Amino acid sequence: MHIAHSKPDFERLIRPRAVAIIGASGDLSRIGGQPLRALTEFGYAGAVYPVNPKYETLKNLVCYPNITAVPQPCDVAIIAVPSTSVAGVIEECGAAGVSFAIILSAGFREIGKTGAILQDELVAAARRSRIRVIGPNCQGLMNLRTRMYGGFGTAFQNPSLQAGPLAMVTQSGGFGFGVATEVAAASIGFNYIVSTGNEADVNALDLLEFFLEQDDVEVVTTYLEGIKDGRRLLALGERALELGKPILVWKVGNSGSGRRAAVSHTANLTSGPEFYRAAFREGGFIEIREAANLMDAARAFLSRRLPRGRNVAVLTSSGGVGVLLADRCEERELHLPELSETTKNELRKFMPEYAALSNPIDVTGQLRADAASMNRAVSVLLQDPEIDQVIIRKGSTVGNLGREWATNLIEVADKSDKPILISVLSDRSEETLEILNRHRLAWSPTPSGAVFGAAALYEFVIKTKRYSKREKRTFPRQEIDWPAAAATLGEHRSKQLLAAYGIPAVREVLLSTEAVAKLTHAPVPFPLAVKVESPDIPHKTEADSVRLGITNLAELRKAAVAVVAAARKHDPRARIEGVLLQEMAVGVEMMLGVVNDVFFGPVVALGLGGIFAETLRDVTHRCAPIDISTAHVMIEELQGGAVLRGVRGRSPADIDSLAETISRLSFLAADHADRIQEIDVNPLFVRPARQGVVAADALIVVKSPAAIVNTDSAVAANV
Amino acid sequence: MHIAHSKPDFERLIRPRAVAIIGASGDLSRIGGQPLRALTEFGYAGAVYPVNPKYETLKNLVCYPNITAVPQPCDVAIIAVPSTSVAGVIEECGAAGVSFAIILSAGFREIGKTGAILQDELVAAARRSRIRVIGPNCQGLMNLRTRMYGGFGTAFQNPSLQAGPLAMVTQSGGFGFGVATEVAAASIGFNYIVSTGNEADVNALDLLEFFLEQDDVEVVTTYLEGIKDGRRLLALGERALELGKPILVWKVGNSGSGRRAAVSHTANLTSGPEFYRAAFREGGFIEIREAANLMDAARAFLSRRLPRGRNVAVLTSSGGVGVLLADRCEERELHLPELSETTKNELRKFMPEYAALSNPIDVTGQLRADAASMNRAVSVLLQDPEIDQVIIRKGSTVGNLGREWATNLIEVADKSDKPILISVLSDRSEETLEILNRHRLAWSPTPSGAVFGAAALYEFVIKTKRYSKREKRTFPRQEIDWPAAAATLGEHRSKQLLAAYGIPAVREVLLSTEAVAKLTHAPVPFPLAVKVESPDIPHKTEADSVRLGITNLAELRKAAVAVVAAARKHDPRARIEGVLLQEMAVGVEMMLGVVNDVFFGPVVALGLGGIFAETLRDVTHRCAPIDISTAHVMIEELQGGAVLRGVRGRSPADIDSLAETISRLSFLAADHADRIQEIDVNPLFVRPARQGVVAADALIVVKSPAAIVNTDSAVAANV
Repeated sequence: MHIAHSKPDFERLIRPRAVAIIGASGDLSRIGGQPLRALTEFGYAGAVYPVNPKYETLKNLVCYPNITAVPQPCDVAIIAVPSTSVAGVIEECGAAGVSFAIILSAGFREIGKTGAILQDELVAAARRSRIRVIGPNCQGLMNLRTRMYGGFGTAFQNPSLQAGPLAMVTQSGGFGFGVATEVAAASIGFNYIVSTGNEADVNALDLLEFFLEQDDVEVVTTYLEGIKDGRRLLALGERALELGKPILVWKVGNSGSGRRAAVSHTANLTSGPEFYRAAFREGGFIEIREAANLMDAARAFLSRRLPRGRNVAVLTSSGGVGVLLADRCEERELHLPELSETTKNELRKFMPEYAALSNPIDVTGQLRADAASMNRAVSVLLQDPEIDQVIIRKGSTVGNLGREWATNLIEVADKSDKPILISVLSDRSEETLEILNRHRLAWSPTPSGAVFGAAALYEFVIKTKRYSKREKRTFPRQEIDWPAAAATLGEHRSKQLLAAYGIPAVREVLLSTEAVAKLTHAPVPFPLAVKVESPDIPHKTEADSVRLGITNLAELRKAAVAVVAAARKHDPRARIEGVLLQEMAVGVEMMLGVVNDVFFGPVVALGLGGIFAETLRDVTHRCAPIDISTAHVMIEELQGGAVLRGVRGRSPADIDSLAETISRLSFLAADHADRIQEIDVNPLFVRPARQGVVAADALIVVKSPAAIVNTDSAVAANV
Repeated sequence: MHIAHSKPDFERLIRPRAVAIIGASGDLSRIGGQPLRALTEFGYAGAVYPVNPKYETLKNLVCYPNITAVPQPCDVAIIAVPSTSVAGVIEECGAAGVSFAIILSAGFREIGKTGAILQDELVAAARRSRIRVIGPNCQGLMNLRTRMYGGFGTAFQNPSLQAGPLAMVTQSGGFGFGVATEVAAASIGFNYIVSTGNEADVNALDLLEFFLEQDDVEVVTTYLEGIKDGRRLLALGERALELGKPILVWKVGNSGSGRRAAVSHTANLTSGPEFYRAAFREGGFIEIREAANLMDAARAFLSRRLPRGRNVAVLTSSGGVGVLLADRCEERELHLPELSETTKNELRKFMPEYAALSNPIDVTGQLRADAASMNRAVSVLLQDPEIDQVIIRKGSTVGNLGREWATNLIEVADKSDKPILISVLSDRSEETLEILNRHRLAWSPTPSGAVFGAAALYEFVIKTKRYSKREKRTFPRQEIDWPAAAATLGEHRSKQLLAAYGIPAVREVLLSTEAVAKLTHAPVPFPLAVKVESPDIPHKTEADSVRLGITNLAELRKAAVAVVAAARKHDPRARIEGVLLQEMAVGVEMMLGVVNDVFFGPVVALGLGGIFAETLRDVTHRCAPIDISTAHVMIEELQGGAVLRGVRGRSPADIDSLAETISRLSFLAADHADRIQEIDVNPLFVRPARQGVVAADALIVVKSPAAIVNTDSAVAANV
């Protein structure tokens, strides 16, 4: 049970004028004591009202017996009472004019049935009282600008956490606050951190949407286990691109996610992690896997510099680490171009004669301690129009030399808007790094980290470019005559529906076995394929109900009898609608499909066809609908995509038609998300360039019209 | 030019009784000054002799005008004179009875031609003087047990580096010592660190072999850019398994390695990184990519606990991080089994009623601070015979609670020999961690790090098991009638050679075009394939010189004429040896091949056949020869290997025959490494189980007998 509200304004939640602590404790180490201590000792300027009938006063504050006794309305009530009392307390909060409740108490849905009932009661009380709820079973909320420490746990006992232009929403309180503390200790401050606990009401997406719009938030981060509205995730990602603010997303829960039992191969190849990746790939998300990734990407984005393209120059004073940096750049799709003659000539003016002027550039040990020359080289590289970003490996940053180098580098950097990423040695001086931090020059303690930052910037830029060119609608909506009820459609029928969106299939005719027996000439040219048509046999090959390469009438008649017999043997109760005679297709075999997920709506999958899609799992996904340019990106993402571009002297395939078909199928799926459960177009043959594509087999699983899901409207809005 | 010596004994190099510093400087910040300071101030007990005609004394020591004036023979001379003087100084060292020279001076091969001449002179002088040389252009050597700091750079100015049971050999001085310093700062000490510089004489492998045998070295690490003897790398890896000591290898230089221009597809799909990986995959190597990996793997191995299998239990007090740990385990091939009923019953005795007794196990916040119960759970898991390792996520380790927890955990750990990996929060106490370090319990600052450690242990165990079962020789050597000179052999001839090692091919006959014209029946059954046989057309499909599925004599005659015409058109000068009539093969198409590398000797490659090998790069490699069980491992490594095991109702392929064929080909390649340049068996059809494999095409590139390489003897020794 969830509360349906309009988009909430969390202004009063994150900047409350007054906070009540219900279940406040005199033992400041307890859950009800920690926020009392933090809110009174760490600099919070608002009013704090402890509520607990057991006490008269707490920490020199009047302690009230209940929330209604508190003299002024509180924006936020922090609740730390036993789970069985929470619903009642919420009702009282409503009466007292509280807007938001942060429920720290545990003992709800996470403990099983009894807890789930308590959670439902809590939600009902909140709805009646028009109160928005964070939690329950959460660690709380921090606004480090106003020193509002509204929660418990290790981080809430640390008064020295610094504010900064990041915001974090975490679905794991313990882990999220742990990471945030570690990151903040590295001088990357958070203005806001919220743990969402059981998400009985407010969920991670609500808060992410809100923080993304805050002027004092430049980078949003989130630790996600799962969300229930993939379409909002998609919209969030697009908004991030519009605002030029990245969302660093640490998604967990990718393992052991049992494949669903589904009819189509597409659905069998699509599970939880793919849906998230489909959303992350288009929006302003940067996926992270480690606290270090968070820091490296955050520093890169906080520098407010973005590259124009993928070209990177790497500058080191040690060949060994140059090689390492080059490896990492290549892994992350960054390119190290050769330096232009102009740049080389400029470098020759002050570099040792024997220095390698290749990229990575090794200035040699001779210049290692020569800050001015190192920085002059940086300046030359920044001026090269072919170079989009510069990665510097800097040795020791200690002492005067380190300070000088950093101060001088800032002057050089100020003359350019290109990103500069600095990989510093472990032998580093906090003072020097503080100079870099103050001027927002991105550094990392590891070479890989510097490259991670550079790659994150490039990824964000590329996605922004693609988004700005994206077409909203490439094909008009078509009406389709859906069956009245849920059904698995046979191949012939499926192809007819696909044709409504202009997805071509091989020439074919559906005949009864009797009609085949009477044929005097082939209705499609030899060689042809013979298949059984049955809505009950979605996988005809496995039912031995396909014959390929039939070259004459006698074979054809025999094949028709054989496929029907095999189908009957495979499933005696199968409805057999006839025999399909089909033109043989040639080209590159692909698998194209749709799965309509309850959380993400229709998702398109593209992979190599045949058994390779399944065994190699070389499949990529996007939330439907997508335009043609996005379809091209999908094709490029396939490892096996090279097959389409032509290898070993083969001519390239008709990639343009494939892209158009992917987009058309995605619009079909989006327009009719209320009726489509799964689609398989497998194989889809991609013919040589300019000769189009043809579906050689197809399967549509239709769902019952009763099962309309919310995603429908979301899709429409997205279109 | 390299010095050929017998296997060197580096005893006197790493434990010198007396050290001369030639080019010693009174300026202790200079290259000739830093070792003088370090050797006199940081605790080195041996004699130190500064040598420099400019000084009478240096740091209260007599300074000698040259090495021959030094009163006692020195085991080691550290040389820091201009590059042009080095060869002369080496000669003098020879006269003075010095055994080892560590040449810090730069200006040799790394700066180009002039430097290369100086380096050759240096090598010649060393050979004449029977002196073994480290460097030039290196940062030197450290023995931290004896406080012998023989070099320069930041690390050599740090007296607080602690000794410990690691050794490092680095081909990048700056980076290697930087990493070692960072690792040592995390209480993981090195007894020995050597930077090898230009490797004019002693190379990284020499030192790795030596350190691996040292009793005070438990873990060997290396930062490698490249080596010249792949067979020694292989032997080193095997020795590591025999000794039970891992080699943590950080290999860089994997990008931009241009593919070689080669005839076979195998060679086109095989470049530098694959050769190294082929060696790393079998030996006692653990590949690392970050300093953090080094620390995590080192701590895991230093615990002296090894798992029996891949099963891991994960214990947390926060569900969120449990999910993350499970993700990482799955990525690294570790398995989280369900807990047994016995284990669950034991846990129920003290865990909260609602705690999830799945794996990962969340003991819930209630037990977070309850050290005794947390550790009791660890104890229960360690006793479960199904569990091979336990990963614990520990919250705060500060204060009394942290100390208690650690002390208690040690008692629990002492009762088991299974690995325990602890992921600690950033909120950690150095004191508590010191307790863990002292008792060699492995911890990591990140969840991924704990999993990395567990996975490294499992990998080492699996490799050890496989190595112990490896067969030395599975097929007898066969004599082969090689052509007199280098040659590319046609398909028919290539298959004949393969047959000598029992590698079966499709039935085929080679006929002249005239003979084909006169045929009155097919010499192999229809349908058949017709191909041109020409040593000059290695890729017949690209020359349009293949016709498949020929079903009658008329077609056959037409095809024979057509393939020859196409071949002539493709290459008018091609020698045409006839027309091949060939049985059509069915089965799973694989690519099997050999490339004989100048550094690594013959390497076997296995991949999916057809265009997929090239486009998907789903290819795996091993240094030849390999036994059948290793061939099975190769098959399992292929992502596409599932095709062989049977998908979508297909029957499984004859994997046993494939493995046997891989092994046979590897012995052919190893036995005849002096004549084989490249082999392609592509496609190799793997038929259904127990029906064998057949080569449908083959290509052998023979090299000239003059081009015998050293690897031949290495291969023989390996066999």
